[in-house]
Amino acid sequence: MAYTATSMNISMIPAFLIGGGVDDGLNVPLTLLIVFGAAKLLAEAFEWMGQPGVVGEILAGVALGPGLLGWIAPNESLKTLADLGVLFLLFRVGMEMKPSELIRLGGKATGVAVAGVVVPFLMGWGLAAWYGSRMIEAVFVGTALVATSVGITAQVLAARGLLKEKASQMILAAAVVDDVLGLLVLAAVSGSAAGEFDWRKLLLTSGLAVGFVLAALFWGAPMMKRVGPVLDRKMRAAESQLTVAMVALFALSVLAEFAGVAAIVGAFLAGMILAESASEKIRDVAHGTTELLVPFFLVSIGLQVDLHAFSDPRLVWVTVALTVAAVVSKIAGCGLAALPMGKKDAWRIGVGMVPRGEVGMIVAQMGLAAGALGRPAFAAVVMMAAATTMVAPPLIKMAFAGVAPAGEKAEEVLRLG
Amino acid sequence: MAYTATSMNISMIPAFLIGGGVDDGLNVPLTLLIVFGAAKLLAEAFEWMGQPGVVGEILAGVALGPGLLGWIAPNESLKTLADLGVLFLLFRVGMEMKPSELIRLGGKATGVAVAGVVVPFLMGWGLAAWYGSRMIEAVFVGTALVATSVGITAQVLAARGLLKEKASQMILAAAVVDDVLGLLVLAAVSGSAAGEFDWRKLLLTSGLAVGFVLAALFWGAPMMKRVGPVLDRKMRAAESQLTVAMVALFALSVLAEFAGVAAIVGAFLAGMILAESASEKIRDVAHGTTELLVPFFLVSIGLQVDLHAFSDPRLVWVTVALTVAAVVSKIAGCGLAALPMGKKDAWRIGVGMVPRGEVGMIVAQMGLAAGALGRPAFAAVVMMAAATTMVAPPLIKMAFAGVAPAGEKAEEVLRLG
Repeated sequence: MAYTATSMNISMIPAFLIGGGVDDGLNVPLTLLIVFGAAKLLAEAFEWMGQPGVVGEILAGVALGPGLLGWIAPNESLKTLADLGVLFLLFRVGMEMKPSELIRLGGKATGVAVAGVVVPFLMGWGLAAWYGSRMIEAVFVGTALVATSVGITAQVLAARGLLKEKASQMILAAAVVDDVLGLLVLAAVSGSAAGEFDWRKLLLTSGLAVGFVLAALFWGAPMMKRVGPVLDRKMRAAESQLTVAMVALFALSVLAEFAGVAAIVGAFLAGMILAESASEKIRDVAHGTTELLVPFFLVSIGLQVDLHAFSDPRLVWVTVALTVAAVVSKIAGCGLAALPMGKKDAWRIGVGMVPRGEVGMIVAQMGLAAGALGRPAFAAVVMMAAATTMVAPPLIKMAFAGVAPAGEKAEEVLRLG
Repeated sequence: MAYTATSMNISMIPAFLIGGGVDDGLNVPLTLLIVFGAAKLLAEAFEWMGQPGVVGEILAGVALGPGLLGWIAPNESLKTLADLGVLFLLFRVGMEMKPSELIRLGGKATGVAVAGVVVPFLMGWGLAAWYGSRMIEAVFVGTALVATSVGITAQVLAARGLLKEKASQMILAAAVVDDVLGLLVLAAVSGSAAGEFDWRKLLLTSGLAVGFVLAALFWGAPMMKRVGPVLDRKMRAAESQLTVAMVALFALSVLAEFAGVAAIVGAFLAGMILAESASEKIRDVAHGTTELLVPFFLVSIGLQVDLHAFSDPRLVWVTVALTVAAVVSKIAGCGLAALPMGKKDAWRIGVGMVPRGEVGMIVAQMGLAAGALGRPAFAAVVMMAAATTMVAPPLIKMAFAGVAPAGEKAEEVLRLG
């Protein structure tokens, strides 16, 4: 019985969906249908035009959101599905990388990540200062340009079976380092903004973050190899392997947050740790769940875009300039640092690090809340973050053009046609 | 970067999780870990004791909820995952049944469902009236005893590979009819409660519900067989089959709600319609998503139980009596109607229809909101609904003892050991 639907009719859908507060997610199936359906419809349209489907899915969020149709507002239900989706995406991506590989790439990846943090920070700061921002605002704009949101790139590469490429592995490794660096920059900046910059606290923060990543990297996989089979033998409930994998995924995501890095870094490490012991079944579940939930992650990014903010034409130009700076600075920073790997791979790595996505948006929200960012700068940063996620996929597609899907993905991509 | 976690420390977890309002689901990974982990831990404990894991997962909800630890309160995030979980559960279960089979069983299933509605309604009404309830309260208590919540039974049967059994198929068919009947009883009862009982409206409601189910049943599968391959050929985005299946699932769930029946009935019908054309891949995704999300559905049921309500010993006795009436009346009603199928199957069908779960709870909430149910009766009905979901699984396990898993599930169950 659909008790909740008795007083509802078709014309009420939009108002019913937006609703905020009490009604949030009341009608779960309707939200699922509209968000998933719209995302896939636009993805299909973009694939027809030879463009990556991800961009269509983000634009579906823009269309459904307050900017255009106003049918859906960001709410807890969507946030939950989006968060779960991006956790599974990085979990699945982590399964394509060996811990030993990440360790091997560590040195070079750090170089790429550092260059990809310093150049964007300086360009963002400079641009904002040149435009007349106060010091603290300029610093926050620079900070928003720092952190790569690796989810978008991961989705584009995974959909094309390119995760095993040398450049892809470097992007993933650099993204982990980038996240730790981003944490430090933000800790330093928000500490300064609050007038309580503390070197010891910063050292502790960075120690915790680095320690967590290294511990998971060096001890995670061997521990899993020892504990996994024992649990599997002892547990009586069905699907014990799946249960262990999911608990590992959620636990590492939580630990990552406690250590100060993003939950998705924990999810990525969990995937890597489980990669060798995971059965085909767990891979299928991770893959299926990702396919189901990633549209909610992409739509959520689009929902943050409020086109009304751009009735002021000057703001349009600032946003365009900021987006150009965001794209150019990451390509220049990461690309130059990766040049020893060859021009082609350097270009691939550069464009792979371009998306800022939800990470840039969170920095913007913190800046707004702290009074460091004004409304116009906030709108420009949010739009920049969304724009980079839409600019990057076609660039990534071009950069990897002609590369055949490799490894176990090849079969799948071929089968899917 | 885990921006949201910077101001959090371990001792804050419980308060942070409960939070209500703004903080709902802020920390998605932590909620996922605690709910999923606790559910699976108790499931494991119950399997060790030879009891069905589902009961452990519901009890995990009782333990985490306001009744005991108070770590988690029902919130939008959990509701979304629970709703999605039970949709996938019924979708997956639907794939185990052919439309032709449901049509063939229609007549007998209607007999079983009618008996399973009339007997519990009268027993619930009688018991409440005997205890001194007002007329309207007694009628609502009777109504809460009507509708079977087929999710629990489906999960127990699916986990044991028993969905293809004759008795299982009859349970599923009867549950669909039961849901339509439940809708009518509730429409009549709430109409009367509001003093606006209207025969024409009731006829329209029932016509819409029956029409939806019949249309999906007779036209769904042939239409899917014709449209599916065309879409598959024309669509360019990866995983087009999966996209089509998910859109069908969500669309039928929404249509079901508009037609007045439960979203899960739509999900069940979607599974049935897709059963023959669905690839192994879609089955795997449906299976994996179910395994991942069903614990959230089970925990959500447990979260509704507030043990504090039972500080009044008289209420304990009322609840026990109501639970006994709920169990006995369904077994008697459905079992007697199914007696021509043989004693064994009649018993299996009877116990399979026992769980009231979330459906009984929703009726209770409507009764409370309408002022028809007093606080004590509300608490007793909610507890009855939870208790039936915990009493049923061991009974179902016993009733099906010795039956070997059949069909394609056999292999899986054997593989999982």
